[in-house]
Amino acid sequence: MYTAETKIRVRYAETDQMGVVYHSNFFPYFESARAEAIREMGLTYADMEKQGVIMPIVEVQCRYLRPAVYDDLLTIKTILKELPKQSKIEFHHEVYNEKSDLLVTAKIILYFMHKETMTRTEMPELLTEKLQSYFD
Amino acid sequence: MYTAETKIRVRYAETDQMGVVYHSNFFPYFESARAEAIREMGLTYADMEKQGVIMPIVEVQCRYLRPAVYDDLLTIKTILKELPKQSKIEFHHEVYNEKSDLLVTAKIILYFMHKETMTRTEMPELLTEKLQSYFD
Amino acid sequence: MYTAETKIRVRYAETDQMGVVYHSNFFPYFESARAEAIREMGLTYADMEKQGVIMPIVEVQCRYLRPAVYDDLLTIKTILKELPKQSKIEFHHEVYNEKSDLLVTAKIILYFMHKETMTRTEMPELLTEKLQSYFD
Amino acid sequence: MYTAETKIRVRYAETDQMGVVYHSNFFPYFESARAEAIREMGLTYADMEKQGVIMPIVEVQCRYLRPAVYDDLLTIKTILKELPKQSKIEFHHEVYNEKSDLLVTAKIILYFMHKETMTRTEMPELLTEKLQSYFD
Repeated sequence: MYTAETKIRVRYAETDQMGVVYHSNFFPYFESARAEAIREMGLTYADMEKQGVIMPIVEVQCRYLRPAVYDDLLTIKTILKELPKQSKIEFHHEVYNEKSDLLVTAKIILYFMHKETMTRTEMPELLTEKLQSYFD
Repeated sequence: MYTAETKIRVRYAETDQMGVVYHSNFFPYFESARAEAIREMGLTYADMEKQGVIMPIVEVQCRYLRPAVYDDLLTIKTILKELPKQSKIEFHHEVYNEKSDLLVTAKIILYFMHKETMTRTEMPELLTEKLQSYFD
Repeated sequence: MYTAETKIRVRYAETDQMGVVYHSNFFPYFESARAEAIREMGLTYADMEKQGVIMPIVEVQCRYLRPAVYDDLLTIKTILKELPKQSKIEFHHEVYNEKSDLLVTAKIILYFMHKETMTRTEMPELLTEKLQSYFD
Repeated sequence: MYTAETKIRVRYAETDQMGVVYHSNFFPYFESARAEAIREMGLTYADMEKQGVIMPIVEVQCRYLRPAVYDDLLTIKTILKELPKQSKIEFHHEVYNEKSDLLVTAKIILYFMHKETMTRTEMPELLTEKLQSYFD
């Protein structure tokens, strides 16, 4: 299993008139958390794109257990439960506030694709090598 | 079954550098589609809130089949497959472009709650009455 | 002078915990209003981009007089006070609610640019022809 | 003069199909930068709101000199050129990328207001005391 953690501070812009983070505003947090997880492994999603590999999202699931509020310093956990098979990768996320309350859980499924041809490809080798050790 | 349809034009702000609608930007479309569906039944979500009933989202699932692009005039279908039981309501959404391609499907689960006490409540009576006929 | 009007319904996602539309969420409304104004003239911004002309924003000014709230059906006025000179175009916007209160005023300056070379260009001829009559 | 700096990483969600940060997405960056500047002075905007003082935005001006792109680690400067007079505060912002290119400049004017009565008030005393030393 591979796990990474990112801290994200809730912006006013991300709240709604219920006084909580609007439900879909967690997805950019997850995106950011995945990008930081990839950066920790020694490459960046930005570079991957420049090299012609994009990662469109094909499915999301998200459960909202407790609200996040303005100025919360959230911890976003990014979890890979298994090594990606072929062109598909499945991330799990958990969101905690500073009191360690679990607020949100999510599953995000992405494909690795060639930017030019929009056909599926495999995870870049460097990423596979880095991740391998976590799943032995 | 109850079905409603809303047209939404994709804004530039909602695209990302992949040249498509960013995945989480469909959720405000769904929110808007649900609000229009409720308006068609003769009340508004805004009024419901003023009367003390809020509808926080507790779960979302969304599948992205084909991309939506800038300036697409999308049709958002809002579907109730069954009458809400107690405090829980489950909406299904489908997004089509002008060529009638199915782009996205989603399931959104919300609770009816008292705004003040944050305890669950039932669907407002007026809404139940309106919906009843679709499920007889 | 050229004037166009667009109706936009405020989404819940666009409110913040002050219970009003978050200040920067008016800019996508203005973008949408400009796109509709261009559509009325017989072309679309989407087509302009496909033909290689983009319109990056170089300056914005915006005054917030009164708040817009959830579910408001806003009228966004788009005003051209003068014919664009060379590569620069200056739009004025006014936002009204259903009670005809003036909520927000804005000035948005954009350039016409070649997408490929990122050099300035002039307003597409079709647009100039259409606008000419309003300024005679 | 009072100056503070905040680092913000550009999210994919904040880009548009031009491949750059959508113009209005800088405003939440500014909001975040102001919140961090206030935090550095020993209080938080979140606490101010809990104590009944809100800071609605009444005017913004923003110039876009160069684009910010995905994954840029931006430096947002927050500048107070003079001590707020009465209920009005004027922030200046500058956005730099990692190559120290100046990308965006902005001026944001806010009011201090009583949340309950929506009448103007003065800057909280603690903030005035902290800022005083920068303007002697």
